Amino acid sequence: MVRSISIHALETFPLVKCGDSLADIIVQAAEREGLPIKSGDVVVISQKIVSKAERRVVKLSEVKVSSRARELASITKKDPRLVELILHTSRRIVKASRQVLIAETKQGQVCLSAGIDKSNVEGPDSYALLPENPDKSATRLKRRIEQLIGGRIAVVISDTYSRPFRRGQVDFAIGFSGIAPITDYRGKPDLFGYRLRFKYVAVVDELASAAELVKGQGAERAPVVIIKGLRGIRLREGYTSRGLKISRREDVFKGAL
Amino acid sequence: MVRSISIHALETFPLVKCGDSLADIIVQAAEREGLPIKSGDVVVISQKIVSKAERRVVKLSEVKVSSRARELASITKKDPRLVELILHTSRRIVKASRQVLIAETKQGQVCLSAGIDKSNVEGPDSYALLPENPDKSATRLKRRIEQLIGGRIAVVISDTYSRPFRRGQVDFAIGFSGIAPITDYRGKPDLFGYRLRFKYVAVVDELASAAELVKGQGAERAPVVIIKGLRGIRLREGYTSRGLKISRREDVFKGAL
Repeated sequence: MVRSISIHALETFPLVKCGDSLADIIVQAAEREGLPIKSGDVVVISQKIVSKAERRVVKLSEVKVSSRARELASITKKDPRLVELILHTSRRIVKASRQVLIAETKQGQVCLSAGIDKSNVEGPDSYALLPENPDKSATRLKRRIEQLIGGRIAVVISDTYSRPFRRGQVDFAIGFSGIAPITDYRGKPDLFGYRLRFKYVAVVDELASAAELVKGQGAERAPVVIIKGLRGIRLREGYTSRGLKISRREDVFKGAL
Repeated sequence: MVRSISIHALETFPLVKCGDSLADIIVQAAEREGLPIKSGDVVVISQKIVSKAERRVVKLSEVKVSSRARELASITKKDPRLVELILHTSRRIVKASRQVLIAETKQGQVCLSAGIDKSNVEGPDSYALLPENPDKSATRLKRRIEQLIGGRIAVVISDTYSRPFRRGQVDFAIGFSGIAPITDYRGKPDLFGYRLRFKYVAVVDELASAAELVKGQGAERAPVVIIKGLRGIRLREGYTSRGLKISRREDVFKGAL
């Protein structure tokens, strides 16, 4: 009578290079480690290797700096070329202050530096941008993995982000395919028959966080995690990360910070 | 070569009543389900059953309303008695608007309605307050479970919260014992020897989120989850949830919302 899931990091995952076929590498690594991907699994993949495979790595020395980037760089004291990359991948700058540049990405995610960072990217001045469209990346990866294994899975692309009000970072889902991002309990009964009014749980973010527990960070990072045994969560087509987006008007925390 | 964890919800967990010895019930349920708690496990417990066991359930009909609560009730259109409870358990009101009352709890957590809610609490006008001191609750539960099983474990008390900038809720840790809340990678090398500058991961929040994936919500909720196999995360004494608290001054998102 136990509901259980298991979460596995692929520890022998090779370094990913620009243009690699990530889905093939993932399926092979899982088989090599005796943990083949099966129908119903959720594969959680770190943004960084998706960006690398999609050639979203940029050298700062090749960036042309606009006057707007120069202006924001003088406020934030960040490298103007990095600021240019942030501007290039954002639709809106949310906050600029010393050492802080918060942007809303073109996909609608509000985060530090539009999710651009240096960690685990080769070369002293190379940075990885987020995938152009993480949902589309997830869909491509999902389809190819499904083709290779002959089963239906879900893919979540995750990344590590700071959040307001609490110290430390957690992993969030920046894109996904084959899964409903939210489990909606509103209107369902609780233990005593009282109707739940607010419970509306962002399970893709929880999957990303759960995967981080075995991924880790830095040199010992394992960028691909397989989650097995999920039963309550709907593996379904047709959802996008727009479902996690909230407008400023709807955000109950507006003005609270 | 696989780093794996497994996450198990105790599905036959009985209803918890005021004054119950929760640790004993947890150990018994785990044994009954063939999943005994062992040294090194993390036990994630829903706030609601801790509050019930600690008699933190309040009937609105017994609440005396202050003039400050009446004033905030007229702004928020919430029941003045519920507002009184929120004031009673908060150190600061962060935001009050129609249907929204965000408070900083006495423990320093910023959340909607100071974490007070109605779900899974018996009685039409009964609400559960957060435990008086969730870290102390976790420590008491940890000690008693350790005594019963003859091993060392960690306890995380979790609850479901909305977050800024993203739709949906996830589970966070509101108290814990026997675990370092954050894994600090700053200064450690990445894959290419570059030093990580920011990675500082709130693993207790990720554990809470991971547990929610098997807990669920509402009538089918399983309020206790056992996580087995964690290796990278330090089971250590002496940490409190103050480690997750961030001052307004330090919060990089200040003014961004």
